[in-house]
Amino acid sequence: MDLTPEQHAEIEALRQSRAETRRPTVAALEEILFQPIPVLDHGFVRVVDYMGDDGAIVQAARVSYGRGTKRVQDDAGLIRYLMRHRHTTPFEMCEIKYHVKLPIFVARQWIRHRTASVNEYSARYSVLDREYYLPAPEHLAAQARDNRQGRGEVLTSEAAADVLALLRADAERCYAHYEEMLDPEGLGLARELARINLTLNTYTQWYWKIDLHNLLHFLSLRADPHAQHEIRVYAEAMLETVRRWVPLAAQAFLDYRLGAVTVSAGGLSVIRRLLKGETVTAETSGISPREWRELMAVLESER
Amino acid sequence: MDLTPEQHAEIEALRQSRAETRRPTVAALEEILFQPIPVLDHGFVRVVDYMGDDGAIVQAARVSYGRGTKRVQDDAGLIRYLMRHRHTTPFEMCEIKYHVKLPIFVARQWIRHRTASVNEYSARYSVLDREYYLPAPEHLAAQARDNRQGRGEVLTSEAAADVLALLRADAERCYAHYEEMLDPEGLGLARELARINLTLNTYTQWYWKIDLHNLLHFLSLRADPHAQHEIRVYAEAMLETVRRWVPLAAQAFLDYRLGAVTVSAGGLSVIRRLLKGETVTAETSGISPREWRELMAVLESER
Amino acid sequence: MDLTPEQHAEIEALRQSRAETRRPTVAALEEILFQPIPVLDHGFVRVVDYMGDDGAIVQAARVSYGRGTKRVQDDAGLIRYLMRHRHTTPFEMCEIKYHVKLPIFVARQWIRHRTASVNEYSARYSVLDREYYLPAPEHLAAQARDNRQGRGEVLTSEAAADVLALLRADAERCYAHYEEMLDPEGLGLARELARINLTLNTYTQWYWKIDLHNLLHFLSLRADPHAQHEIRVYAEAMLETVRRWVPLAAQAFLDYRLGAVTVSAGGLSVIRRLLKGETVTAETSGISPREWRELMAVLESER
Amino acid sequence: MDLTPEQHAEIEALRQSRAETRRPTVAALEEILFQPIPVLDHGFVRVVDYMGDDGAIVQAARVSYGRGTKRVQDDAGLIRYLMRHRHTTPFEMCEIKYHVKLPIFVARQWIRHRTASVNEYSARYSVLDREYYLPAPEHLAAQARDNRQGRGEVLTSEAAADVLALLRADAERCYAHYEEMLDPEGLGLARELARINLTLNTYTQWYWKIDLHNLLHFLSLRADPHAQHEIRVYAEAMLETVRRWVPLAAQAFLDYRLGAVTVSAGGLSVIRRLLKGETVTAETSGISPREWRELMAVLESER
Repeated sequence: MDLTPEQHAEIEALRQSRAETRRPTVAALEEILFQPIPVLDHGFVRVVDYMGDDGAIVQAARVSYGRGTKRVQDDAGLIRYLMRHRHTTPFEMCEIKYHVKLPIFVARQWIRHRTASVNEYSARYSVLDREYYLPAPEHLAAQARDNRQGRGEVLTSEAAADVLALLRADAERCYAHYEEMLDPEGLGLARELARINLTLNTYTQWYWKIDLHNLLHFLSLRADPHAQHEIRVYAEAMLETVRRWVPLAAQAFLDYRLGAVTVSAGGLSVIRRLLKGETVTAETSGISPREWRELMAVLESER
Repeated sequence: MDLTPEQHAEIEALRQSRAETRRPTVAALEEILFQPIPVLDHGFVRVVDYMGDDGAIVQAARVSYGRGTKRVQDDAGLIRYLMRHRHTTPFEMCEIKYHVKLPIFVARQWIRHRTASVNEYSARYSVLDREYYLPAPEHLAAQARDNRQGRGEVLTSEAAADVLALLRADAERCYAHYEEMLDPEGLGLARELARINLTLNTYTQWYWKIDLHNLLHFLSLRADPHAQHEIRVYAEAMLETVRRWVPLAAQAFLDYRLGAVTVSAGGLSVIRRLLKGETVTAETSGISPREWRELMAVLESER
Repeated sequence: MDLTPEQHAEIEALRQSRAETRRPTVAALEEILFQPIPVLDHGFVRVVDYMGDDGAIVQAARVSYGRGTKRVQDDAGLIRYLMRHRHTTPFEMCEIKYHVKLPIFVARQWIRHRTASVNEYSARYSVLDREYYLPAPEHLAAQARDNRQGRGEVLTSEAAADVLALLRADAERCYAHYEEMLDPEGLGLARELARINLTLNTYTQWYWKIDLHNLLHFLSLRADPHAQHEIRVYAEAMLETVRRWVPLAAQAFLDYRLGAVTVSAGGLSVIRRLLKGETVTAETSGISPREWRELMAVLESER
Repeated sequence: MDLTPEQHAEIEALRQSRAETRRPTVAALEEILFQPIPVLDHGFVRVVDYMGDDGAIVQAARVSYGRGTKRVQDDAGLIRYLMRHRHTTPFEMCEIKYHVKLPIFVARQWIRHRTASVNEYSARYSVLDREYYLPAPEHLAAQARDNRQGRGEVLTSEAAADVLALLRADAERCYAHYEEMLDPEGLGLARELARINLTLNTYTQWYWKIDLHNLLHFLSLRADPHAQHEIRVYAEAMLETVRRWVPLAAQAFLDYRLGAVTVSAGGLSVIRRLLKGETVTAETSGISPREWRELMAVLESER
């Protein structure tokens, strides 16, 4: 992540300024406000504003005046109850805004989450920086054999070097031609056309604002092992900011969402039979072979 | 609007508390934070949290670091440009949360706006207060003759008195029976059933959170003369809070949205012919008689 | 449910008309198209249009040309996989439109689902019918003791008769006064004001259009035993229409959503210990007493 | 646009199949159902399903039983009234589904419209075709001087040739390396990584489903002269399908939305003064110089 000295100065100035407010304020989040958290080779995510705290969730659930006088214990219990039973609307009462720098192919997955507000850097209006994502060698993996949309073993160091050489050369060349096409003294092509020559690992940036409920849904999908590594690292960085912001909700989310499993009607019946001491096999389980394998993996996992 | 002494004390305590924050803060809005603004006979609206300011709109439009160093002049010009050309996404970057007490029939119109977060007082879970809306006599109007969904002349004082007597007696009786059905020593009916006996002017309350773009859309429809009076007064009270919060955006909204008119292709052609000095009549206008009347009303109005 | 002879004739005429189409068509749903399914004492739900079928889900998941040539077996397996793993977007590719007649207090719960399109009968524009919901005696239940928002035992027949007498008399009187206030020869009050005197069990109606994914989410909440009886009966009637429309998706929904349970990280650990033969008690479980009770209820239930 | 013989056969088979339906059916749209409409050099848009017609808009507005017996004249008048006064919900009652093949940079603009359902071809799961967009020489324009996000004059044929040579070579090379990295006998890189080397003009495809209200909003922004040419041509092709589908709504949209202008409070005051014969200049207008220029352009335009 490369900030210019100018950007560093701007961020520092923002961090120095203070104002008094009557709003709920979260010291642990204020501590990192505006600070870029590095992600991938040139990306970052930083919290630039927020509204609400754990108390706002409780307040909405109680629709009472003010934040009330209940003990923290109670608030934690209520938040855990809401999370466990998917009473989701109180979590919408908190809002957070991030500034994110990310490769375009990651942005394309990210933007599929529709319940957020976005303002992206416009390559029709401005020139994109010469910044593109190159995976670290340990993240260059072969196509998985058993999973059509995943990664398998890490490439050998020779293969990884070959891949990186190709990615780097193509990104460099495409960017150089982008600049050549843009040159007002030369070809002078419109920005909105020149940019179509850039590769999908080029970095873009945006402001992204979302409520806590929809953010947790995003994180449950993108901090998941099935998510592509390059978006998962953003989700993981954001999950840390959520832990600072709303620690009770974050813990409930880890216990009841990220770490939870959904067991089907058929799977539940298998578990009940097993608990009674009955021997159950794939054949006698009443569920499909694929679901049987998924269920056994869940019951035997030591995660 | 009737707050209990307890509620007054809670609000006062919230207003006394202060914290330091690095977030953008709006002094004019902080001044009224948590304070109920009376609306109708027992309702209110109060701002309980907010995020962002005029600068957040500009920041999103510029997708720059920090709030930059441009002069206020520039910010105003940019916000007015965004509003005029319906570049709406930067206005989504500001968020506000209200606590509202309102009659159920108003809540039913309000909830049609889907892009907001809501937590309403639950009459399955709690008992509703004995509070119902009675219009002031000057707002008791006859059915409009020329407009199927509007009001015409104000009722005579005799008719108004008759209407109020009916409304009051029915609301009182229905509420008394609600209590009678609920009485755990008596009929002991479930709350979720007893409440079906209440009249539509019974007050409810909710927390309502929305971004500025969608709030302005709400206000453009509900602060409009075609909106029912009883929701319009809420919209007008909220518009005042918006003026405190984001004065530049609020002024642009008044100039380019609330006070603006949309002129059709046909209407525009009529205006051009008129400006050239041509005589144009309903017959020669090329637009329908209804649209002609609407256009003439707009061009001749002295508002 | 009381349709006028005129309405019967209109529905019959619609049912008689036929056209040829190249679109996917579902015979089992066409069979009941336009036909009102009675719900509660005067309500109904009827399918008035639809788009897509099970094949449309598969098609979107495959993003292939046309409906392809795979065997039904494959389609079922793919749909079940999508449902099990919450790959929800292909289910958005089917759309259905209902015409519903329902009491206002049910409409107020229903409208909380924001991802649908609605056009409701307007009581500002038209006069509401003299129709209100009275529960059947067997649905008149006392407030639950153990659940703050539920029903407990059914009322005695005497208490039920008292409740029904109160509900009926109040609804009748309020409606009579509504008519009296509206009378253009009498008080002549505007419709938008007169209606505020009606009770919450008055019937309204609307067109409601939603995609299959969001419909299933609605059904998972509203066909659930925790939902209020009066909305659950609508959900159950609609679930039957879904079974006709997209039988594969409906079955997957029953197996993997309605009949499924979510087990937390802590609960899963308890199950694993139990399956290994370990004795686990509430005290040694590592989960809260409340969650322990919920987990035991799930594991021992014979549903 | 290049379809394989297989794809042609599939589309033809779909077009041959017919079923009877009781649903509203639109012959003019059925005529082109499934047929790809070529857009750009390799893209297309084709209607693959639809629900509703002009009558469905009217039905929702009337919340009546069936399509009623009103004359076409009345329906047209009502639809025009709804469009003129932005009563938008009845337009949500119609739904359409497209299959679109489009360059990735166009997809990135398109996806910003959040109120639609999308299933996109997955480059994590499958290999993208060797197809990329090259502008026709007459669309290769220089950066506009007066508009930071637009195009100015067309490039000279020499410059255009240079640009095309660069675009073609880079796309070809990046695709060749994509294949090389994917080769299971060679580098064997995971698909989700190899694709990051592709250029933004590579074609992708998706199913895109949206209701008529939101589609018209999309078209009002994307069929507008300020939209980038490459998305505008898709919008224009889709507008033609809307004219077939809902001719009354489409005409109202052209008259009251696409061809309409919004005049601010200040601009309206200027028009009124001009119509009274007053001389008004930029200085005496009371509006900003920029808004004055925009207003004069509207009043003098001969479009």
